[in-house]
Amino acid sequence: MNLIILEPSEVTPSGDVALADRRAAHLVNVLKAKPGQAVRVGLLDGPLGTAVVAGTDGQRVMMRCTFDGDVPQRPTVDLLLALPRPKVMRRLWAQLAALGVGRILLTNAARVERNYFDTHVLTSDCYRPLLVEGLQQARDTRLPLVSIHRQLKVLVEDHLDRLFDGVRLVADPRVKTTIGNATGGAAERVLIAIGPEGGWNEFELQLLETHGFHPVGMGPRTLRADTACVALLTLVHEALRRSGAAVAE
Amino acid sequence: MNLIILEPSEVTPSGDVALADRRAAHLVNVLKAKPGQAVRVGLLDGPLGTAVVAGTDGQRVMMRCTFDGDVPQRPTVDLLLALPRPKVMRRLWAQLAALGVGRILLTNAARVERNYFDTHVLTSDCYRPLLVEGLQQARDTRLPLVSIHRQLKVLVEDHLDRLFDGVRLVADPRVKTTIGNATGGAAERVLIAIGPEGGWNEFELQLLETHGFHPVGMGPRTLRADTACVALLTLVHEALRRSGAAVAE
Repeated sequence: MNLIILEPSEVTPSGDVALADRRAAHLVNVLKAKPGQAVRVGLLDGPLGTAVVAGTDGQRVMMRCTFDGDVPQRPTVDLLLALPRPKVMRRLWAQLAALGVGRILLTNAARVERNYFDTHVLTSDCYRPLLVEGLQQARDTRLPLVSIHRQLKVLVEDHLDRLFDGVRLVADPRVKTTIGNATGGAAERVLIAIGPEGGWNEFELQLLETHGFHPVGMGPRTLRADTACVALLTLVHEALRRSGAAVAE
Repeated sequence: MNLIILEPSEVTPSGDVALADRRAAHLVNVLKAKPGQAVRVGLLDGPLGTAVVAGTDGQRVMMRCTFDGDVPQRPTVDLLLALPRPKVMRRLWAQLAALGVGRILLTNAARVERNYFDTHVLTSDCYRPLLVEGLQQARDTRLPLVSIHRQLKVLVEDHLDRLFDGVRLVADPRVKTTIGNATGGAAERVLIAIGPEGGWNEFELQLLETHGFHPVGMGPRTLRADTACVALLTLVHEALRRSGAAVAE
């Protein structure tokens, strides 16, 4: 926990907050918080800031917060992901938030089992705390927007233009074009589509390409869905950082 | 399982093999193997090839293999990793082998708990099958070489020159130099050092830099040890692929 994230409703207008959950335990046991000590905090979907510990009473930690003016920019990378197995999806939530994604679109695909959609892992009660855990790891406050789409075709044909404006990529292991080449020099938003364990089928690839997705590869090695997500999001971030640096020069 | 890996001792000189374990179950239940069907196989640390199913008898699958002449090149990326928590290390083995590493050097560091070294997860009985699982995922046969070093200083000062020859990098979140810039155009071996959850301390960073490690960063977000490993190895592979492509042009 490199940042303690607070819900707006937890903080009084004067900046006071009292914590009694895992965050309090972390403050007491890991950070050894003492009165007067300053710790990094962030308001969920709001600014970063500093909290000064006012006191502790064993269970609770009382703090007074001061927030910076600026709210961090939402990450400029979005993810369209064919829903993996619930066990894998559970492991991914925190990692996705830590890597930085603005929006997570989960979708069906021919090679996704229908019953994956019935899992507890897709309820916000389950994934919201995991996303917050990832934000606390990466010192970000912007909660990824999550939406679940049971039909890829409907998502791509009817909703995607409203949800996303930028460069669209689809990971395709058969392709040699790198993410860096496909994003070019444009430092705008990038959406990357990642297929199921067995890959998108031909119809789905065609559908995505018809709707502006550029196929990109990342070398000959086939990776597990969760490893592939981390690897591909890392490469998109890196490509945007490089093009941003190039624009700044 | 995108490749079935066979131990050299399992295959007769004429290329016959009989499997009765998880691989046989995968052949029967997932690949629905029938006599005459061809499947991808690889000899551990040897060539890739094809096996034709000769027959099945419920439990066992009999196959005859033909191997290509060439043994895949060992991945040109090596990893020096401060030992993470056993639970994280267990999760990493298969992912490291899938991403492609030639050598895994596990080391102590000031912020690594000593008792992490007592875990079952560091016995080859535990990690070898996990590494093979990663190779089967990524269709590679080259088993990463694993060594465990209880003293970073002894490793770096006395053993590293013998174990590694190439570009040395150390991940440092405070640094802006990208991996692509640090590896330059040289398509040789790269060793990347990744610190513990709390980072290398100043003494360790100094020790590494004195011994030729160039600090590299990957942006402002702090990642969990396992996510960071996947992300950094992905970036090193990508940098080598780019420089390899540049050399080939």
